[in-house]
Amino acid sequence: MKRFISYFFLNLLIGISLFAQQGVTQCGTPTGQTPFPLQSYIELADPASPSAKDWASVKGVQVSWGSTDVRYPKHAVPAVKEQKTLRLKAWRGERVNAQALVWTTEPVENLSCELTNLKDAKGNLLPDHVWDSRFVRYVMTDELNKDGKGACGYRPDHSLFDSLLVADPIDHLLKDITVPENTVQPVWIQCRIPQATVPGVYKGEVLLKEGTRLLGKLNLEIRVSDRVLPEPSDWNYHLDLWQNPFAVARYYQVPVWSDAHLEAMRPLMKMLADAGQKVITASIMHKPWNGQTEDYFETMVTWLKKADGSWSFDYTVFDRWIEFMMTQGIDREINCYSMIPWELSFQYFDQATNSLKSLRTAPGEKEYEEMWVAMLTSFSSHLREKGWFDICTIAMDERPMDVMQKTLEVIRKADPEFKVSLAGNYHDAIEKDMYDYCICIGQEFPEEVRVRRASEGKRTTYYTSCAEAYPNTFTFSDPAEAAWMSFYSAKKHLDGYLRWAYNSWPLEPLLDSRFRTWAGGDTYLVYPGARSSIRFEKLIEGIQAHEKITLLRREFQQNGNKSGLKKLEKMLSAFRLDDFPEVPAAGTVQKANALLNSF
Amino acid sequence: MKRFISYFFLNLLIGISLFAQQGVTQCGTPTGQTPFPLQSYIELADPASPSAKDWASVKGVQVSWGSTDVRYPKHAVPAVKEQKTLRLKAWRGERVNAQALVWTTEPVENLSCELTNLKDAKGNLLPDHVWDSRFVRYVMTDELNKDGKGACGYRPDHSLFDSLLVADPIDHLLKDITVPENTVQPVWIQCRIPQATVPGVYKGEVLLKEGTRLLGKLNLEIRVSDRVLPEPSDWNYHLDLWQNPFAVARYYQVPVWSDAHLEAMRPLMKMLADAGQKVITASIMHKPWNGQTEDYFETMVTWLKKADGSWSFDYTVFDRWIEFMMTQGIDREINCYSMIPWELSFQYFDQATNSLKSLRTAPGEKEYEEMWVAMLTSFSSHLREKGWFDICTIAMDERPMDVMQKTLEVIRKADPEFKVSLAGNYHDAIEKDMYDYCICIGQEFPEEVRVRRASEGKRTTYYTSCAEAYPNTFTFSDPAEAAWMSFYSAKKHLDGYLRWAYNSWPLEPLLDSRFRTWAGGDTYLVYPGARSSIRFEKLIEGIQAHEKITLLRREFQQNGNKSGLKKLEKMLSAFRLDDFPEVPAAGTVQKANALLNSF
Repeated sequence: MKRFISYFFLNLLIGISLFAQQGVTQCGTPTGQTPFPLQSYIELADPASPSAKDWASVKGVQVSWGSTDVRYPKHAVPAVKEQKTLRLKAWRGERVNAQALVWTTEPVENLSCELTNLKDAKGNLLPDHVWDSRFVRYVMTDELNKDGKGACGYRPDHSLFDSLLVADPIDHLLKDITVPENTVQPVWIQCRIPQATVPGVYKGEVLLKEGTRLLGKLNLEIRVSDRVLPEPSDWNYHLDLWQNPFAVARYYQVPVWSDAHLEAMRPLMKMLADAGQKVITASIMHKPWNGQTEDYFETMVTWLKKADGSWSFDYTVFDRWIEFMMTQGIDREINCYSMIPWELSFQYFDQATNSLKSLRTAPGEKEYEEMWVAMLTSFSSHLREKGWFDICTIAMDERPMDVMQKTLEVIRKADPEFKVSLAGNYHDAIEKDMYDYCICIGQEFPEEVRVRRASEGKRTTYYTSCAEAYPNTFTFSDPAEAAWMSFYSAKKHLDGYLRWAYNSWPLEPLLDSRFRTWAGGDTYLVYPGARSSIRFEKLIEGIQAHEKITLLRREFQQNGNKSGLKKLEKMLSAFRLDDFPEVPAAGTVQKANALLNSF
Repeated sequence: MKRFISYFFLNLLIGISLFAQQGVTQCGTPTGQTPFPLQSYIELADPASPSAKDWASVKGVQVSWGSTDVRYPKHAVPAVKEQKTLRLKAWRGERVNAQALVWTTEPVENLSCELTNLKDAKGNLLPDHVWDSRFVRYVMTDELNKDGKGACGYRPDHSLFDSLLVADPIDHLLKDITVPENTVQPVWIQCRIPQATVPGVYKGEVLLKEGTRLLGKLNLEIRVSDRVLPEPSDWNYHLDLWQNPFAVARYYQVPVWSDAHLEAMRPLMKMLADAGQKVITASIMHKPWNGQTEDYFETMVTWLKKADGSWSFDYTVFDRWIEFMMTQGIDREINCYSMIPWELSFQYFDQATNSLKSLRTAPGEKEYEEMWVAMLTSFSSHLREKGWFDICTIAMDERPMDVMQKTLEVIRKADPEFKVSLAGNYHDAIEKDMYDYCICIGQEFPEEVRVRRASEGKRTTYYTSCAEAYPNTFTFSDPAEAAWMSFYSAKKHLDGYLRWAYNSWPLEPLLDSRFRTWAGGDTYLVYPGARSSIRFEKLIEGIQAHEKITLLRREFQQNGNKSGLKKLEKMLSAFRLDDFPEVPAAGTVQKANALLNSF
């Protein structure tokens, strides 16, 4: 019941936010740089200052392994016990991460990071290109709502919230970086173990340098098991992070849907495909979410009301988007928003007046049915022609039950075979209609429903949004929470996870993750330039774990390994929503990962 | 040369006028009535007052025939010698007009007009429905420019010009009318002689009544000759009055291109067809004249630039308009404006951004050619499919020669068989390219060009605009000038006449004929409710005369009637532009009509 209420307030607050949409900018301290940087950029100044007393105890340049579960503050001496050797475990085919730290009392002009070959005792080699180092960058964020109960609502005045510069972007576009005195520079090390790797312990060195001068050396050992994680494209995990192509066009300053636009999106969407994304987010009408993001979703279907009163639809943009995403490897599902947008206003090009017009109408009304039956009939025919009908869903956000039911009636009238998806509350009455059903993290699918859905090949997931304080993926969230979520999904025997914003960037996402609504980072997980983030890498860590659990469960069930199954379920039982915030995610996740790597 | 210069200034002034387009209203004295009246309406107050002295000599209600060549002022005792019998001459098939006057020192509550049968001595009857009486109404107007040299230019402040209430609208929607004391009420009597009428002198009575009380009786005699004027649809005369469907939609407050819109236009366009109109005015792009009228011309072709960069065109509106006009009997030519609009800006619906965009480009530029070749290629194909290609012209207004030549190149590139029309100056270099060539009244077609064009079946006409002080069809113009123009056309052996505005109504055309540019009535000839006007009826009088001249010339040439031909040409030689304003049109026209009815 609590969730229902918070959902209500969420919508209310989103509604209110619209009144201040125009003219809001959110870039904090001016940096003097050109807007929308793509290659190098200057971070905003850190509102926190170094503690002279703390730094007084540091001698020159220090180097140590840190933890990927920690966002090391830029100006604070890192609270780490010096660690020169890091030992990781991995399945073949898995991506593993490590975080190296450099902190210094004297400026380092051009810090760079080199990696030596990773070799095992028998001389087997992991090729150079499977691992890399990237600099962790700092971005401005804020905090949860003052009551600590979530992060929804309108934030017209950032000064009412704490301003924090936090480690989050992972920048692969810099060869070296300047590290000022009394600051920390984390380096993100990632190794993508090839599936063909010979099991064994691979050792290598991370060399941190200033020009040719060696500042420090860290040892990395990766124990590669004989288990194999499939390629992301073969993962069972149903990942649904909603893409916003319009944000990319704006940030990259390229004409929307031009070749340059597709080129700009290519690495960003490839990165998403490599995380196991299954769903293409498609907007089939103007402003499905009433322009709640910095860059609103424009329709990918051209709606033309002809002067003779008939409707005509053109799918050039839709096709271009879907075909582009499919070539990136995201080709399992197309979710089309929305027949029941947040504002029940439907824009179309009115041929008679040669102008854009809007029709306000709601499910249950004659005009609504006339318009949508025309659209869906045409759409169905187009999708069937393209061979996409079976992977396409008419996608809804939560709406009152009678509205959703009236909408379903219209869909059925146009084509009873249309698949439907919903991200919302659990409703027994319409559950059977949902091919892809994603409920809020706090809710439950009845066990028999979940089992039946699985047997029917339907997708069953959960989502988080601004409503949850924990776990979440705000730029200030504990990084392990991003991994935690997929263990929770596994615990619930769900197919995966949904979040509404892969890249609905605020004005200057590299500098300032805050937005006019919700907490910092709520609207995006990755950065311009196809830069990853600590959150996104930890999300993938969880997805890999979910995939491992799926494989292990299947194996243990097949070979009757009850002990194994029991260990798995016991491990998963530790993922309890109610434990937040007292029990931080990192410990639970670390233990769980250790178990998965022990089989 | 003078005409070239004035044309230049005309364009300049039109350009300037655009800056004050928004927010201008031009309705004079408030009348308290609902805007855009259709049935009955209240005229604006007359700025002139009755002269007590003049009216003192009038006794009660007076009735007499007047002249159709005079706009009798509302508040002045009419300067007529009492005339109780009017004798007219007509060909069979001709429309003849008469103007009866009622003026009174005492209010007449409900003046009505009854017509008895028109009978000849043998008892032959003209049926009731061939003649009718309509009340002449009064509308506000202004005057020529202060230098008397025309009426072009911007008139932001009507107080800088004289304000006159003049007789012009002819109102068929009132059964009776109230005539206040010391005012004049003219009544327009029209008789449409059926072609099958037995030649003879037909006599009837016009009864002017207040309720059942007879106020006065006038005798009408029409001498019908054995000559026959063809039906308007068979007239040779090439009448081209540009229609503005958008003004009708706005005034009638109906959705543009709806069935209600077509219904509203039906009587208006039927009236135009009955005047011998040959041309359908089509706008194939947004604002061909840059919105110079109260209701700008919207495109009848939907321009869609698809996200893949290709162009797509839809002709639903165009087809609806053309088919509608053809069913009204206007089906000889379709003139499509404009490849070279007054502002070289081309609007289209941009699919990628789901918005209307404009491209500024000019003939000779690559973008211009790419866009227009795409459009014309599609258009040609559509027109051929509809069977309209041979009657369709790509229509231009005057532009610099190199611009027009570059435009012709683009047309030829798309389809070398496209017909082209031009309303502008005479240019020898492009004359041959023009299927329909309309030049300014002051200019000349070389005789050999005119003869060759006639032998090729091309249309050759002239036009008037705000540039001419005389002859013209402003609401204050001498009514006979409207007839004069077709005699002049006949004198020049031209096919007809063009005027740019049949019904580009100002805000309240029934009340106030003034506009933000040009002199009163420049923008329209007929009124809402499909009300005719003194100007329009006199225009038709001239068109009928032109048609008679064409028939008589042909007959006289065929039967070698040199004397007849000589009489005709001598009569026409009296139509001299240079005589204005010293020689008023009425006398010349009356004499000419008398001659035409004497054969």
